[in-house]
Amino acid sequence: MDIEEIRTDTPGCAEVAHLNNAGAALPPRPVIEAVAEHFALESTTGAYEAAEQNEAAIRHFYDAVARLLHARPDEIAYVENATRAWDMAFYSIPFAEGDRILTTTSEYSSNAIAYQQVAAAKGARVEVVPDEADGSLSLDALEAELVKGNVRLVSLNHIPTYNGLINPAAEVGRLCREHGVLYLLDACQSVGQLSVDVTDIGCDILSATGRKFLRGPRGTGFLYVRREILRTLVPPFLDLQAAEWKAPDGFEMREDAQRFETWERYVAGQIGLGVAADYAADLGMAWIESRVLSLAARLRKELAARPGITVLDKGARPSGIVTFTVDGHDPAAIKKAARERGININVTNPIAHGYDPNALPTAARASVHYYNTEEELDRLLAVLPEG
Amino acid sequence: MDIEEIRTDTPGCAEVAHLNNAGAALPPRPVIEAVAEHFALESTTGAYEAAEQNEAAIRHFYDAVARLLHARPDEIAYVENATRAWDMAFYSIPFAEGDRILTTTSEYSSNAIAYQQVAAAKGARVEVVPDEADGSLSLDALEAELVKGNVRLVSLNHIPTYNGLINPAAEVGRLCREHGVLYLLDACQSVGQLSVDVTDIGCDILSATGRKFLRGPRGTGFLYVRREILRTLVPPFLDLQAAEWKAPDGFEMREDAQRFETWERYVAGQIGLGVAADYAADLGMAWIESRVLSLAARLRKELAARPGITVLDKGARPSGIVTFTVDGHDPAAIKKAARERGININVTNPIAHGYDPNALPTAARASVHYYNTEEELDRLLAVLPEG
Repeated sequence: MDIEEIRTDTPGCAEVAHLNNAGAALPPRPVIEAVAEHFALESTTGAYEAAEQNEAAIRHFYDAVARLLHARPDEIAYVENATRAWDMAFYSIPFAEGDRILTTTSEYSSNAIAYQQVAAAKGARVEVVPDEADGSLSLDALEAELVKGNVRLVSLNHIPTYNGLINPAAEVGRLCREHGVLYLLDACQSVGQLSVDVTDIGCDILSATGRKFLRGPRGTGFLYVRREILRTLVPPFLDLQAAEWKAPDGFEMREDAQRFETWERYVAGQIGLGVAADYAADLGMAWIESRVLSLAARLRKELAARPGITVLDKGARPSGIVTFTVDGHDPAAIKKAARERGININVTNPIAHGYDPNALPTAARASVHYYNTEEELDRLLAVLPEG
Repeated sequence: MDIEEIRTDTPGCAEVAHLNNAGAALPPRPVIEAVAEHFALESTTGAYEAAEQNEAAIRHFYDAVARLLHARPDEIAYVENATRAWDMAFYSIPFAEGDRILTTTSEYSSNAIAYQQVAAAKGARVEVVPDEADGSLSLDALEAELVKGNVRLVSLNHIPTYNGLINPAAEVGRLCREHGVLYLLDACQSVGQLSVDVTDIGCDILSATGRKFLRGPRGTGFLYVRREILRTLVPPFLDLQAAEWKAPDGFEMREDAQRFETWERYVAGQIGLGVAADYAADLGMAWIESRVLSLAARLRKELAARPGITVLDKGARPSGIVTFTVDGHDPAAIKKAARERGININVTNPIAHGYDPNALPTAARASVHYYNTEEELDRLLAVLPEG
């Protein structure tokens, strides 16, 4: 792969050293153009008229995302963001009194809030499965909990936002299948970063966002729901897109994953997200994964060699998200100083990982993508304060 | 007001005679530029970094929409579309067995589907209040139903999508207050078309979209929730924007209307929607309302004078949405022929108004905005087939 060519195809690469890809990545030119062109068409010819004209591109979104995930187009729903995609699936699960929800210590707190809401409303119980010594989810502990029974759902994120982990999604999938338990994977940080194959992973539901490693537009997301379980899930909200009205007092839900959609939507974003999925698939997810993980490994190694810097990442094979602290320096000040030199990093938010007893108040977070270069990593290292 | 100046400020006016404003209106230049500029900034500097830079414009959305509706900024939530805004409010109402929901014959079917879903789940009852002879909601019939008791919610649209009506929103508001009943107004077609003052109307909840008469970006909407009832409503979904996580197993909801929001969003759209609200308020809603209704009245009069054309609109003071049929001609063919001549109209969808026993299969729909001209109406009249 020619990195320079890829960077030339990404206008933002000329402006910033963007190491905040776990926040939102820089979109490539075809994504930018697809969104801007549809938006311009809406503005000059009318939004409905523009949608009629670009109908093929709008529909292509389903094929593109299905291809990326090794799913079927009728298993894909366009949802305005990953949170709502996850919500639409999670709140469609018919929990009953005593049902157990198993999750991990590094679960995202928005999901934790949803668990508590359902626990309070339905009498379900939320249980956090312990970690291995290396900080990753313990598969033995998960299996022991599954064996005890009454587990309605195993729900976790593939890559947490803050600790370098890649959770063993496929191994969890095998255990869930073995025990016949529903499996919801929050793939917000992994789609576009790793080869995510829903068949290999064996998840029943997967949610993701457009703007992170997939390099799509902000304000887009999607949901995958395995065909076989679609009919068992009644979305918490239904509109004329999700269901057909049967006057005077009935309705019939769609049979495909679009039952989780709403008719009204950010159409330009949907087109752009389809383009982003194609872009990733065309480059090849295996190559992307390998490049992201090796750049991150290099950064981690350099950071760890610097006195006063502590790398906080866990797991045997960490993700593209690198978190660290510098002795005596506030991560927010580090972020600000880097930004002033044209380098984008972020700061972790402890409120976002509320089950983790070991989470630090805040840390600096540098998240790399395949379009980053070793030179950009060196630029970051050069602006870090002495520990 | 100088209509030519307004049209020059609307690039689409040079391209099409846009009479599909009830579908989506043409945005003015400041809206187009605000969205395009923020999107470009996201693409070149990173989406989070762009949001930090444009924080004031993002926050201004709340002030702008509050000013337009005569509400308070803390009563406004940004939601990705009007359907989800309506859903977030409707599904937060704690319905109980036997609760009555009162609505109108011209209610939008997406809302009807939601009523049925809640009716089935909670044992609530949906009742359609009869019309007056002129097709508008009968206030006497509404009052008679309110007097019977057990009404948990009165829920209607301000302007239906298909029959020219303007429902008597403020009169309904007075009755609801008198009887202490919650009042949800779907203002999808009225915000940006009429002077909508939530204090005058007396609604507790109001939902609207950005893309219609408000001339905002597609993929945006908002919710107004009256301050005094905010705490009585628990949103069906909660994330880290809507609630604060209290480890290990609790959360605290926000006290303002942003409890109905999600953190992830189409930020460029939010900025553009704020600009659209300012644009409408600066022009003056009284002038906009007067111009829209008088253009529509002129079109109705001309249509009614043509042999073979039937105007279907109802009510004493009809809206900017004009529906009609031409004897022997399929509305879809009329739409297509107009489109080929650069004139945008739409066709009504009978599935969308499922409580109305008198709704026709389909009709042609021309919906005017203040930037339309009499010459554009004449162009439409000139391309209509002979009845």
